[in-house]
Amino acid sequence: MPKISQKGQQMPQSPIRKLVPFAEKAYKMGKTVYHLNIGQPDIKTPQLALDAVKLHGLDILAYTRSEGSEEYRKKIAAYYAKNEIQVNHDNIIVTTGGSEALLFAFGSIMDVDDEVIIPEPFYANYNGFSTASGVKVVPVISKIEDNFALPPIEEFEKLITPKTKAILICNPGNPTGYLYSKEEIKKLADIVKKHDLFLIADEVYREFAYDGAKHYSILQEAGLDNHAIVIDSVSKRYSMCGARIGCLVSKNNEVIATALKFAQARLSPPTLAQIASEAALETPQSYFDDVIEEYVERRNVLIEELNKIEGVQVANPKGAFYCIAQLPVKNSDAFAQWLLESFDVDGETVMVAPAAGFYSTPGVGLNQIRIAYVLNKKSLIKAVNIIKEALKVYQD
Amino acid sequence: MPKISQKGQQMPQSPIRKLVPFAEKAYKMGKTVYHLNIGQPDIKTPQLALDAVKLHGLDILAYTRSEGSEEYRKKIAAYYAKNEIQVNHDNIIVTTGGSEALLFAFGSIMDVDDEVIIPEPFYANYNGFSTASGVKVVPVISKIEDNFALPPIEEFEKLITPKTKAILICNPGNPTGYLYSKEEIKKLADIVKKHDLFLIADEVYREFAYDGAKHYSILQEAGLDNHAIVIDSVSKRYSMCGARIGCLVSKNNEVIATALKFAQARLSPPTLAQIASEAALETPQSYFDDVIEEYVERRNVLIEELNKIEGVQVANPKGAFYCIAQLPVKNSDAFAQWLLESFDVDGETVMVAPAAGFYSTPGVGLNQIRIAYVLNKKSLIKAVNIIKEALKVYQD
Repeated sequence: MPKISQKGQQMPQSPIRKLVPFAEKAYKMGKTVYHLNIGQPDIKTPQLALDAVKLHGLDILAYTRSEGSEEYRKKIAAYYAKNEIQVNHDNIIVTTGGSEALLFAFGSIMDVDDEVIIPEPFYANYNGFSTASGVKVVPVISKIEDNFALPPIEEFEKLITPKTKAILICNPGNPTGYLYSKEEIKKLADIVKKHDLFLIADEVYREFAYDGAKHYSILQEAGLDNHAIVIDSVSKRYSMCGARIGCLVSKNNEVIATALKFAQARLSPPTLAQIASEAALETPQSYFDDVIEEYVERRNVLIEELNKIEGVQVANPKGAFYCIAQLPVKNSDAFAQWLLESFDVDGETVMVAPAAGFYSTPGVGLNQIRIAYVLNKKSLIKAVNIIKEALKVYQD
Repeated sequence: MPKISQKGQQMPQSPIRKLVPFAEKAYKMGKTVYHLNIGQPDIKTPQLALDAVKLHGLDILAYTRSEGSEEYRKKIAAYYAKNEIQVNHDNIIVTTGGSEALLFAFGSIMDVDDEVIIPEPFYANYNGFSTASGVKVVPVISKIEDNFALPPIEEFEKLITPKTKAILICNPGNPTGYLYSKEEIKKLADIVKKHDLFLIADEVYREFAYDGAKHYSILQEAGLDNHAIVIDSVSKRYSMCGARIGCLVSKNNEVIATALKFAQARLSPPTLAQIASEAALETPQSYFDDVIEEYVERRNVLIEELNKIEGVQVANPKGAFYCIAQLPVKNSDAFAQWLLESFDVDGETVMVAPAAGFYSTPGVGLNQIRIAYVLNKKSLIKAVNIIKEALKVYQD
């Protein structure tokens, strides 16, 4: 029997998904499961995006240009301009989700065994994309005590080798909810310029900045044009994760020309989803105001309730819709599985994402979980109560 | 300025796309261009697939399961059963086009510097996916004089090294139009079993088998379950290239489990397109009968007209909707560019794909072009006439 590849063996299983069989077991037992484990918001997709698809006038569902239609890219550039980011449509390649944008970025700037420095905890699938691309993640630990702020820049500097090609951040952060300040971005800008590296920023949660804080994009930083690569997506912005439309943005023409070759090999991003995504750009500000108000309320409730539980420490997120909570358990992986298999409050339980999978350093984050606050307040309160009751009886 | 990767530099530009700027020049000059260069059929998408999208009842455009919904995969399994291919839904991972299925297959079974043997000419993007995956294409030349039949199996045997992990075929072939016989598949089955290799078959043109010939899938071959990986797609079958839905099919559970990890990293295939693709499975046989009748007529006209041109040799395709024609020119790349830039018949010209990009061996196929017969007969006759007139005056 022929063997699978070493790469395939090394591909990490998504920490978000590996509990799925246990969730299915819980369903079969008749339990209700509150899903705090995945960033699939319950927020409605803007109606105009859904309607645009219903009104499609296609008689052939054809390829679009590999980089996305010029019309759509021009509208994306206008969206960025509204967000005080000056780019034009030639700086943009439409991709199949932010995932593909990241794969194109990795392929365009890194060879096998090259290194990318990432503050951890980080979006777990960065591990998968790194393995798939044959590149090495070099983590810098950020701490729950600091709310997961940018680690001291010297920590990055220490890790730079001739193999280092890029620093990758997620801003606001999944899973931390941390929003980098302008000053932190400037520190990163300085170090990538000094060492001639790329700075990749996953800014898919751009709109989700709370408490009056303003998102500062790496594309707004002067002098960074040749270094900055932004990963973007419509998934969270318009609650249309299933569209699978994102983009890669860079003012470095060589990066765009190279990423375009990867894009051409796979021919075209999905056409129907581009129709929805183009329409979504017309979403009125009131939609975002409502959504952000909702998320802020959820966050406040969530943090308040979590803080009431003895032994639980939680970082206060300023953006996105995740937070990391540290629990009084030894192994949150076992705890999460136990919640699904062996615990319930009146037939209800909770699915959370064990945080170890969001770290690259072995043994770190074992007592942490990621909570996505993608449920309404009432459900969140119930879900946190289940965690509270569970911790009273859980023994690890 | 930070440098792009060697991989990025090595990524081949798609031969199908690299003439696009010259086509745009031709448009600007007011020329009509007949596109024989790309496999975007003019055939209408089944109305029921287009309607299913119009009738979507979604209020949140959410992720689906990473492997595609169980319901859709069960229907795909039923489609295969109708085609005398026995698989179940657990053997199937829904992908973002056949492109992603191939990337997942490469990632699952090959490491950097591993080798895949491919009869050439082959679908040009295999080069791109190989470069992106860091693996090496080892070509076996098939010949226009033999209609691009399977080269002698000894030619494959000679090329097998410890690095060889797979043989990849496209059946029916793009760009050759060749349909492998059952006997040829059996020869391939024997050699992969003997050397413990995988056999990957890109069968996206399965339905397009002409002259009473029947497609024989590698999944129908007994004893090949651990070796066979099929790449499939709705793109050509239902003329819905823009959907970007395909699948990877294998009865090797390890391959499926590994490919699933790649699938989970990118979360989900496009949701709207899965709705269209699931509906498309209900397409009545009469649709295919009509489409195949149309393609056969086009092929007959195309081959007949090409054969009338002095110095042109053409392989007679038995499947798909491509053919390779050998022209009395030294460099078909220059010829194709010249057609767009400097030639027209009454304001009309033709865009073809130079065939060199479909070969991996340098210097082979320089005088060949690939023609996609995706236009109606009248247009095909006009387009071939333009080539004929062009060859009378072209000097290289």
